[in-house]
Amino acid sequence: MAAYSLLMLPGDGIGPEVMRQVRRVIDWMGRRRDLEFTVSEGLVGGCAIDAYGVPLSDETMAQALAADAVLLGAVGGPKWDGVSFDKRPEAGLLRLRKEMELFANLRPAVVFDALVDASTLKPEVVRGLDIMIVRELTGGVYFGEPRGIEDLGNGVRRGVNTQVYTTPEIQRVARVAFELARKRGNKVCSCEKRNVMESGLLWNQDVTALHAAEYKDVELSHMLADAAAMQLVRNPKQFDVIVTDNLFGDILSDEAAMLTGSIGMLPSASLGAADASGRRKALYEPVHGSAPDIAGRDIANPIASLLSFGMALRYSFDRGEEADLLDRAVQNVLKGGMRTADIMSPGMARCSTSVMGDSILREL
Amino acid sequence: MAAYSLLMLPGDGIGPEVMRQVRRVIDWMGRRRDLEFTVSEGLVGGCAIDAYGVPLSDETMAQALAADAVLLGAVGGPKWDGVSFDKRPEAGLLRLRKEMELFANLRPAVVFDALVDASTLKPEVVRGLDIMIVRELTGGVYFGEPRGIEDLGNGVRRGVNTQVYTTPEIQRVARVAFELARKRGNKVCSCEKRNVMESGLLWNQDVTALHAAEYKDVELSHMLADAAAMQLVRNPKQFDVIVTDNLFGDILSDEAAMLTGSIGMLPSASLGAADASGRRKALYEPVHGSAPDIAGRDIANPIASLLSFGMALRYSFDRGEEADLLDRAVQNVLKGGMRTADIMSPGMARCSTSVMGDSILREL
Ligand SMILES: CC(C)[C@H](C(=O)O)[C@@H](O)C(=O)O
Ligand SMILES: CC(C)[C@H](C(=O)O)[C@@H](O)C(=O)O
Repeated sequence: MAAYSLLMLPGDGIGPEVMRQVRRVIDWMGRRRDLEFTVSEGLVGGCAIDAYGVPLSDETMAQALAADAVLLGAVGGPKWDGVSFDKRPEAGLLRLRKEMELFANLRPAVVFDALVDASTLKPEVVRGLDIMIVRELTGGVYFGEPRGIEDLGNGVRRGVNTQVYTTPEIQRVARVAFELARKRGNKVCSCEKRNVMESGLLWNQDVTALHAAEYKDVELSHMLADAAAMQLVRNPKQFDVIVTDNLFGDILSDEAAMLTGSIGMLPSASLGAADASGRRKALYEPVHGSAPDIAGRDIANPIASLLSFGMALRYSFDRGEEADLLDRAVQNVLKGGMRTADIMSPGMARCSTSVMGDSILREL
Repeated sequence: MAAYSLLMLPGDGIGPEVMRQVRRVIDWMGRRRDLEFTVSEGLVGGCAIDAYGVPLSDETMAQALAADAVLLGAVGGPKWDGVSFDKRPEAGLLRLRKEMELFANLRPAVVFDALVDASTLKPEVVRGLDIMIVRELTGGVYFGEPRGIEDLGNGVRRGVNTQVYTTPEIQRVARVAFELARKRGNKVCSCEKRNVMESGLLWNQDVTALHAAEYKDVELSHMLADAAAMQLVRNPKQFDVIVTDNLFGDILSDEAAMLTGSIGMLPSASLGAADASGRRKALYEPVHGSAPDIAGRDIANPIASLLSFGMALRYSFDRGEEADLLDRAVQNVLKGGMRTADIMSPGMARCSTSVMGDSILREL
């Protein structure tokens, strides 16, 4: 069996400490489940700025393009607030997404039974919640041209960004959503602002056309993005798969993540197109950020990063069995009462990042 | 005393039936509080399409520009789904906002004591919630050029919208937010995506500069729009005034509104610049939409529209005393147990739109 190549990019803030726990699980899989990985490491974000003056070096970019999967921690922090716009830490992540053509970002918002009470929503509203948000990740206002800030003189400036989508961009991500829905609740809700934006109208029409041509068996609905922001609060369990653009996806997936009350638990996968051999470029990262305020203190929750590796097992390596093993190990440790600070509640046992890692390894 | 001119635009769906209750309160104010109004009515949205073929006629537009205040119900509905993009019902509302130059949209998200349990959030998270969202309303991606859908051939199209802001546009709405904050909790949180969009970076810098120059006494913070979508769920009471752009404001204000659990209660004001005599163009409307599914059944909640008229009393006519009267009447009716269907809960008395209007008038 050939070894899979993994590129680990721990990044900034709590990135390195949570990724250390991931590394332990990777090694365990190598030893115990006949799954061989060759692991390399690189820098992205603020730490890459400090080392190379850019948030992602060309060498690291090349390594990412060659890897079977990239595992990312988190990027950014106040330390780099003064850095110019095109060199900021986030630019490293955006370059990875764009050059790897990771157009489909899968963000599950799942409520773990043991953590229902961590939500600020009433338990009956969120118990059993299981939404999959499919966010377009390489288009829209994140990458559209023209863009920039223009000086008009007399202290007046003008800032411009461009929201742009084409039919193929819309349909390839919608396809991912429909395929996922077939393996889940068989419902897709597509969100845009077609009542205000022509790009949203096109989104709506292209999703509708693809549905009619190829996915009539899946139930499709459309919702304005503002209405979706409401409905996520009012009755989140109405949703199965949500598909939306880059910017709405950014906001709605963060909102959905917070409904669960435990954003330190949520993984994500960013996928490219399958090549002839069925292989997709892919990057996996937790939904949470770099949390600079708690970095280096061994208190961050490593579960989102661990479950992101679980998504890698599932989507990149077709090892659903190992992914299930990891999911179950996490569930059992939670059932046992182990909690990092972010999900701590009365009566549970508070533990550090590394002790959480220990417990999950023991459970495996 | 000169009479104030009010233009009522009931619009579509439940608009006409809730505005009938507003009309009763206007008449009461005229009879009992020496406040003289001359009231005219017009069409906007789908009903204007049906009557004139356009969602807002030039005559109605001229009336709106001449009025001391415009009171709007709601626009839109599935009936007009097939209408072309530039003739859709929403275009009528957008034309009003643009030509009246209503750049500042004030959207309070307030939890009424009697309705804490209507929220899907835990009572301790939302009790006493009182956020004011100030949304920029005449700029950004709603109006930016170029825009449109282009046919590239072979079934491929391209949809474009443009997000654009200039320094004066940003600073005039930020000024409204700072002024409001001074009369409330003295805190402003400005939201954008400066880590991704240059227009957001400009927003951030221009708000910061205005603050340093004129509003140092107000506490200013900045939050990414995605983080704000999270924090509204996690801990909404951290916010006092939020200022943000047109699109983020659309989404975040709807999310904030739904936190209260009773969007049928929430008013809004859209204000232009003050002229030499201190008069501002202004439009008042409920946050809720036209709810076509329940239209014509006398079950909609008229309170959001009534409180919108209350905002008119406060912001357009400087009659805080009458606005307080109306607020108190609403509070008392709620305390008495009267509830329209949308805010009904066990043990309360369910009532119709018109009976809710009766009760509030009686309370006045
Ligand atoms: C870090 C930032 C560029 C990024 C985004 O806006 O996409 C983040 O918020 C995310 O959702 O992954
Ligand atoms: C009706 C629609 C054009 C409008 C908007 O998007 O601004 C509405 O959602 C609102 O928030 O007032």
